[in-house]
Amino acid sequence: MPKVAEILIARGDGFVTEVTGEVMLQFGGFVGDRHFGPTRPSCSRTPWHPRGTPIANTRQISIVSLEECAVVAAEMGVARVYPSWLGANLATKNIADLSALPPSTRILFPSGATLFITEENVPCKYPGKVIAQEYGHPELAGSFVKAALHRRGLLALVEREGLVNTDDKLKLIMPRPRP
Amino acid sequence: MPKVAEILIARGDGFVTEVTGEVMLQFGGFVGDRHFGPTRPSCSRTPWHPRGTPIANTRQISIVSLEECAVVAAEMGVARVYPSWLGANLATKNIADLSALPPSTRILFPSGATLFITEENVPCKYPGKVIAQEYGHPELAGSFVKAALHRRGLLALVEREGLVNTDDKLKLIMPRPRP
Repeated sequence: MPKVAEILIARGDGFVTEVTGEVMLQFGGFVGDRHFGPTRPSCSRTPWHPRGTPIANTRQISIVSLEECAVVAAEMGVARVYPSWLGANLATKNIADLSALPPSTRILFPSGATLFITEENVPCKYPGKVIAQEYGHPELAGSFVKAALHRRGLLALVEREGLVNTDDKLKLIMPRPRP
Repeated sequence: MPKVAEILIARGDGFVTEVTGEVMLQFGGFVGDRHFGPTRPSCSRTPWHPRGTPIANTRQISIVSLEECAVVAAEMGVARVYPSWLGANLATKNIADLSALPPSTRILFPSGATLFITEENVPCKYPGKVIAQEYGHPELAGSFVKAALHRRGLLALVEREGLVNTDDKLKLIMPRPRP
């Protein structure tokens, strides 16, 4: 049964998130998270727009899975890679291949709150720096991007508002397959 | 070269759209279209929410291709199926298999205006009724859904604001393929 393993909030300006017990989803994202908002400034993720152009926020929430974090850790040769180090907002468990869920998949929470998956996340260099610092091994910094490719989880927007709690059961609504 | 063939607006309450020469894209959709807005009430398309629940509007704009409209017409045994009869907002030309473009594909216009594809559209019964009425053959009504499956085009949200004109050249940004 897919479940919420951790809820995490980016409170300040830093990349790392911190674990919390519950969160309110509103149109725009996780209430209190620095990525909250209907729009965001274009960044290196969207190089087809000039940097700083206001664009729709389709990266409201970053989702990772404990299973994929464990594979990334094994690939990097470290004991653990925590969702907080990846700046994740939500960590799931019992969804083995989370990153393979296609865009437009919905994730429903018991309250009715719903996430709409917009796209797969692509690893950048920041988590590698965090992991290197945590373990005190600077040479780890460069190995994250390759280790996390197609294991970096998903991005989502809030389709329906509501409360989300740790240990919530998750229901997945998959898009219709094409022939 | 992919281009804008027609721009269409849903001005009133009806299903059919009408052709116009240009349109302003703002966060929420086509300015002046009845589907404009950051949210919409849940409908039969989203049966995992109670009908009428406010949800994020990931169906701001309906896109079809002239090429797929021609195939639908041929399948139904009629001369033409017009984008307006499908309630479309944008008709493209020179994108043969538009409906196969995956969610998270971006469509860029020369002004910088950009659409973010949220999902493939699934045919419903309304266009069949319109087509049957236009041709005066009630028996056509039932044949649209099958003829239009995987040829019904795409749904999009506005990623970046800007003006869109008929005959605009289109640039497609595809998501990274998975292995």
